Amino acid sequence: MLVLIDKKGRKHLVDEKIEEYHSNYGVLDLTNVKSGDVLETHLGHKFYCVKADLLDYYERLPRAGSIILKKDLGAIIANCGIGSGSRVVDAGTGTGATAIFLANIVGKEGKIYTYELREDHIKIARNNFESAGLDDVVESKLGDVREGIEESEIDAVIFDLPDPWLAVDKAYNALRIGGYVAVYNPYIEQIRKAYIAMEEAGFKELRAIELLERGFEIKEVGTRHRTRNIGHTAYLAFGRKYNQNI
Amino acid sequence: MLVLIDKKGRKHLVDEKIEEYHSNYGVLDLTNVKSGDVLETHLGHKFYCVKADLLDYYERLPRAGSIILKKDLGAIIANCGIGSGSRVVDAGTGTGATAIFLANIVGKEGKIYTYELREDHIKIARNNFESAGLDDVVESKLGDVREGIEESEIDAVIFDLPDPWLAVDKAYNALRIGGYVAVYNPYIEQIRKAYIAMEEAGFKELRAIELLERGFEIKEVGTRHRTRNIGHTAYLAFGRKYNQNI
Amino acid sequence: MLVLIDKKGRKHLVDEKIEEYHSNYGVLDLTNVKSGDVLETHLGHKFYCVKADLLDYYERLPRAGSIILKKDLGAIIANCGIGSGSRVVDAGTGTGATAIFLANIVGKEGKIYTYELREDHIKIARNNFESAGLDDVVESKLGDVREGIEESEIDAVIFDLPDPWLAVDKAYNALRIGGYVAVYNPYIEQIRKAYIAMEEAGFKELRAIELLERGFEIKEVGTRHRTRNIGHTAYLAFGRKYNQNI
Amino acid sequence: MLVLIDKKGRKHLVDEKIEEYHSNYGVLDLTNVKSGDVLETHLGHKFYCVKADLLDYYERLPRAGSIILKKDLGAIIANCGIGSGSRVVDAGTGTGATAIFLANIVGKEGKIYTYELREDHIKIARNNFESAGLDDVVESKLGDVREGIEESEIDAVIFDLPDPWLAVDKAYNALRIGGYVAVYNPYIEQIRKAYIAMEEAGFKELRAIELLERGFEIKEVGTRHRTRNIGHTAYLAFGRKYNQNI
Repeated sequence: MLVLIDKKGRKHLVDEKIEEYHSNYGVLDLTNVKSGDVLETHLGHKFYCVKADLLDYYERLPRAGSIILKKDLGAIIANCGIGSGSRVVDAGTGTGATAIFLANIVGKEGKIYTYELREDHIKIARNNFESAGLDDVVESKLGDVREGIEESEIDAVIFDLPDPWLAVDKAYNALRIGGYVAVYNPYIEQIRKAYIAMEEAGFKELRAIELLERGFEIKEVGTRHRTRNIGHTAYLAFGRKYNQNI
Repeated sequence: MLVLIDKKGRKHLVDEKIEEYHSNYGVLDLTNVKSGDVLETHLGHKFYCVKADLLDYYERLPRAGSIILKKDLGAIIANCGIGSGSRVVDAGTGTGATAIFLANIVGKEGKIYTYELREDHIKIARNNFESAGLDDVVESKLGDVREGIEESEIDAVIFDLPDPWLAVDKAYNALRIGGYVAVYNPYIEQIRKAYIAMEEAGFKELRAIELLERGFEIKEVGTRHRTRNIGHTAYLAFGRKYNQNI
Repeated sequence: MLVLIDKKGRKHLVDEKIEEYHSNYGVLDLTNVKSGDVLETHLGHKFYCVKADLLDYYERLPRAGSIILKKDLGAIIANCGIGSGSRVVDAGTGTGATAIFLANIVGKEGKIYTYELREDHIKIARNNFESAGLDDVVESKLGDVREGIEESEIDAVIFDLPDPWLAVDKAYNALRIGGYVAVYNPYIEQIRKAYIAMEEAGFKELRAIELLERGFEIKEVGTRHRTRNIGHTAYLAFGRKYNQNI
Repeated sequence: MLVLIDKKGRKHLVDEKIEEYHSNYGVLDLTNVKSGDVLETHLGHKFYCVKADLLDYYERLPRAGSIILKKDLGAIIANCGIGSGSRVVDAGTGTGATAIFLANIVGKEGKIYTYELREDHIKIARNNFESAGLDDVVESKLGDVREGIEESEIDAVIFDLPDPWLAVDKAYNALRIGGYVAVYNPYIEQIRKAYIAMEEAGFKELRAIELLERGFEIKEVGTRHRTRNIGHTAYLAFGRKYNQNI
């Protein structure tokens, strides 16, 4: 896949086999185009052409709802010690955005087991995994993590569910000693319930946080924080399994 | 390595070969101990024992100064698309904390090239890489990135330097088309200078941000943000290379 | 003045002598109307009617640019100890919003001396002071505070200027022992320059801050911070005069 | 009262009649001292001497617990339109800090009615009102606002109570048309309950917020946010009375 970037910074994801692209700024000839080229439409407007990477793909993913922002994904990865080779359970899949992001981190030595209840979401998600070339890293499963998680010795379990407190004990069983659970939820009450359920399930190193990202405007006249800002995405709770809870 | 966790949550990193550990709470017998065990000192105080992972190691690393917090590391990873197999330049090394964190993400398919001016820091860093078992993933180099970066087709360059604006054009040359630069700096003026230098070097998708992490207290009486909070670590600037700037 | 509040919470400021008001929701008969009434348009839409207070007036003021938000005004009042009877210098006037807000605090026992360079702004401002009934509390002056402040033994001086560092020494002279200076500016570099000039002028208790207001959504499903938020208005710097600087 | 400020910026509140003050830095001769003087101890250490104002007094007040910070007081004043001449109900009194702060704003034309259940607190509070010279502006009452508020046509009611939801309907009755209620509480659940009770009592213009104050360090090397910061004080909820709720 290639990403074509117009003069306003908007990104257009196109298949490498496509020979011609029709944009608002005119037609681009894509025969013999390669990453790093600067193209011009027939109307003379400039486009950058770059080989699409995971982030381009993540942002332009066919999806049903909202995706987790990079500030929160970064916090999940960094607080759960997820890296190359990690085996991670992701619930629910949605249309696969989180699984794709994590798959890029864990790589072919790792595995993402992603659970989803809705078959329509799974269908979109599997198409997304395939077109991202990650279908060997991601295993997409129809199933309800509140009933159980089939895997064991997992490094991290990530919940993006409306009722995570019903599933945190299943995460405990699925995790290796030293493994992490992360809960992502937009409501304070839900994070509180999940946190308390995590405590009851035996998790340690409990933390509930939120991350604010504030952008700066760097202008000739001076520097200031952006006047518009995303005020809230979700709260996060983390825990870690220390022992088998016998 | 094992991590022993006392009743106050403090972590003690110990070699797996050690047979006895003397803590403030008494002596622990470590013969035949394994990850997941709950131990007791001769005075009857409980310790959890868990196989140390990257995060335990990161936090307990022998070091000279402060390390980059997980909120900022997570943002760097997520905004630069760093994953399994990525090839990343890290400058400066310091005592190796950032390189170790990134090495865990890129894995054996990837590589961290870490530059440092001070030989005393390199010495500590190399010991840290070795004891983390990451010396095949991290290549530690004595050198000044303001003079040049030897690698090419790099996926991301991370600067944690006092004067990053002197090196961002070198990062441009070292990066592949589509690659990212990240600058970490505690001062607004320095981030501004780096941002402007990045713009002049040809970087696109420029952004300057800061991340605030706010913790919650979840108590019986109710939920509230923590009254004490880290107010600031550093500002971050990001850019991306679109073309060869011919 | 009366404020009419429609079903969407929008406020319409009307003179008490007006007998009929034409809104998007139909015509309101205002004969015999009084504060506390619930009115209905000829199309059956409900309006609340409340005697306008300072805040209604402040928000609906005829003006040329943006006004200082309540979070920042509150901080200025609280950090400068402004209260009933205070004598305050305000520069520049703009169209008078800050002066009106402060006049409500200092009352008839106090005084606001407000300086402005632009005669067109002063004209709008004076109309605003008059229609707010505050023209005996506010003294509107054509003049450049960078050249000097005529008053003395002032309790507080507030600067909302592009170049406050050129005027802080004039504030020092105008203040009583123990009086305060406040600087409001959207740019970090400008706040820094003002802060350093305040230090050089002899001010003590120096502080530079910013205030973030985050709103909550309280919904049936749960509580969360608002997803949209004002990310930035301005930075504030404060100082206090301890002695005559002989 | 005078405030003596030592070289570390610490403030010592002393009565004007005192002739000698013994500090850690030596003895100060206070005969013939006046506001604006720079004094020296017998050991040669410098002290500034300034006539104490409301803010000095507020910060050094004899008290039992914590006081409301200026950022939150400022927000209460600015969001409730409190000014010279306002009549405000304050519950509970505690040791009188909030009442004193508000009394400085409303002045002799206004009035603060402050309710408190605990007689020991009232005793301290009344001493504080007297020594601040505000006992004619503040009326201190033994009473439970959950049972009722005796005043009527009040401009604003401020609650700093553990269970404000039990009193907001009493505030509704006490307020004039157009008057405001403010709730200050450290817990999210309590603010939520108060907010919902305010809605049920008929309040309009409902808002729940929090204010973060972030300080800057302005140093030679550059400018940055302070690394230590108060992470949380309390949440605030506001409402306004539009009509008699018949």
